[in-house]
Amino acid sequence: MSTTPLLSWLLIAVEASATLAFALSGLLEGARKRLDAVGVCVVAGLAAFGGGTLRDVLLDRRPFVWVAHSEWLWALLALCIAAMAFLRARHFAPTERAMQWPDALGLGLFSASGTQLALAQGLPGIVAVLMGVVTATFGGVLRDIVCNEIPTALRDHRPYAVCAFAGGWVFVAAAHVGLPQGWALLLAAGTATGLRVLALATGYTLPRWLSQPPPPQ
Amino acid sequence: MSTTPLLSWLLIAVEASATLAFALSGLLEGARKRLDAVGVCVVAGLAAFGGGTLRDVLLDRRPFVWVAHSEWLWALLALCIAAMAFLRARHFAPTERAMQWPDALGLGLFSASGTQLALAQGLPGIVAVLMGVVTATFGGVLRDIVCNEIPTALRDHRPYAVCAFAGGWVFVAAAHVGLPQGWALLLAAGTATGLRVLALATGYTLPRWLSQPPPPQ
Amino acid sequence: MSTTPLLSWLLIAVEASATLAFALSGLLEGARKRLDAVGVCVVAGLAAFGGGTLRDVLLDRRPFVWVAHSEWLWALLALCIAAMAFLRARHFAPTERAMQWPDALGLGLFSASGTQLALAQGLPGIVAVLMGVVTATFGGVLRDIVCNEIPTALRDHRPYAVCAFAGGWVFVAAAHVGLPQGWALLLAAGTATGLRVLALATGYTLPRWLSQPPPPQ
Repeated sequence: MSTTPLLSWLLIAVEASATLAFALSGLLEGARKRLDAVGVCVVAGLAAFGGGTLRDVLLDRRPFVWVAHSEWLWALLALCIAAMAFLRARHFAPTERAMQWPDALGLGLFSASGTQLALAQGLPGIVAVLMGVVTATFGGVLRDIVCNEIPTALRDHRPYAVCAFAGGWVFVAAAHVGLPQGWALLLAAGTATGLRVLALATGYTLPRWLSQPPPPQ
Repeated sequence: MSTTPLLSWLLIAVEASATLAFALSGLLEGARKRLDAVGVCVVAGLAAFGGGTLRDVLLDRRPFVWVAHSEWLWALLALCIAAMAFLRARHFAPTERAMQWPDALGLGLFSASGTQLALAQGLPGIVAVLMGVVTATFGGVLRDIVCNEIPTALRDHRPYAVCAFAGGWVFVAAAHVGLPQGWALLLAAGTATGLRVLALATGYTLPRWLSQPPPPQ
Repeated sequence: MSTTPLLSWLLIAVEASATLAFALSGLLEGARKRLDAVGVCVVAGLAAFGGGTLRDVLLDRRPFVWVAHSEWLWALLALCIAAMAFLRARHFAPTERAMQWPDALGLGLFSASGTQLALAQGLPGIVAVLMGVVTATFGGVLRDIVCNEIPTALRDHRPYAVCAFAGGWVFVAAAHVGLPQGWALLLAAGTATGLRVLALATGYTLPRWLSQPPPPQ
């Protein structure tokens, strides 16, 4: 990849802080559902690595990131133990708000890098973009399914997956016109993150279904 | 495959209308659960392609149908947008009833073709039939899991998966006696679809557990 | 594997009784949720083979155990039919208690053998142990997800997955010091099973989150 060392370090820093934000979202959800210590670790792990793992299963890529860099698993375990020791219930809401920003960074980075990996396999644009969206969002979807909730990403009405979708298309377009990979990645991730931040800042919500559906059964 | 062009076209027409019926079932379920636009598309996509994708992951087949024919993804997106614009809540129930027939066609076709793909890999009959059942039913199962419901296919008491099971065995038997693939497919799909239509028409339900289980926790 | 024929037979007996215990747990859960006959079979199958299948998907191993030994599927089907005919609701609780012991055996055996399979692929210790835990516990997790419950393994507070985790590390250590595979397997499985039995006998529970989380939404 034609990235400078600086860009390379920046990417690693973004990836680490985003994965941390994803893991913390799982940890808080697990704690809120009163799971035991094992459950909290599992849900944190699903939130952090579930999206990338599902993408790799669908793309038939091995090894998974947590296999190739198993130190991530140790970091996750340490995070969970530290959180269980130090994180108090009254810190939950502030932690969640503080996590919105690294989470938006992760949304951008993972959608761009997921799209890049799929494009590199010669897949069509729409499939590649979808793989980016899966990478960025399915960790949270799996977290919510295991916690017996309808996934937030599917019912929140605040744009999340659509930002990843837009970022993915920016990457496809940038790759199509021959932009160097590093710049394409930066541009795509910046678009997705920027749209997400904009949506959070303005309180924009997705259009609703035109008619009122009957109440849930 | 020794199919005539006519049979080939018929199969494509059945597959398209069945996939449409599966996608619509996801769309209606997503709308009923008041998911946002993204959620409705995701659930429609899971219902339409989840079964075939899970089968292909289990059989280690690539590419998935929605990767090889990515125009299906565009069609799904267009369907969701059209439905959100035009489908009114008062049309939900009639749409669901109208969808029972293409859904039964899909049940037959997907169970037969899933069985065929697994048999072609040299798998034992029971495994091949199971793959057919997975293809035909797991899209709906994933749709219901994401919507936080116990899957309809597992608790409905009206025969659904068992029709696919029967159809799969017809395919195995037909292949065993050396029937041409096209005819075996037609016979197996017809059996599964026919049984499902018969069950719907007569209101037949599966036998219940002999004793009354304690109420759900 | 340097196992004597006796040890080999013992392993098969343990595996069969553990798989039976896992299948019965799914069967009881399905019956309690008033699933139909198909649902009961599916949930029993997920509980019995889900963990090993997920491990094999993650490790990219084929064929699955239920593909290579498809007679297990017939046995499962026979078990479900027999249970539906003979198992009465008033037998549910005793059956569950009786199943705790083969279940503990399965926890030990599957965590040890899952760790062994992953180590044999040259994976790092922590990943191999995790694969052992997945093998031993994810059947139950999938069973509960399909039944629309938060998985017992994640919220029970009684040690289950941690016993598998400990057993996996015993296998890694035993393999590291060059113990024969058969003995390493026995030692690791014995550790996990022993810890589980000890936890059940003493009523030990995992430490709770230090602070009271807010109630579930």
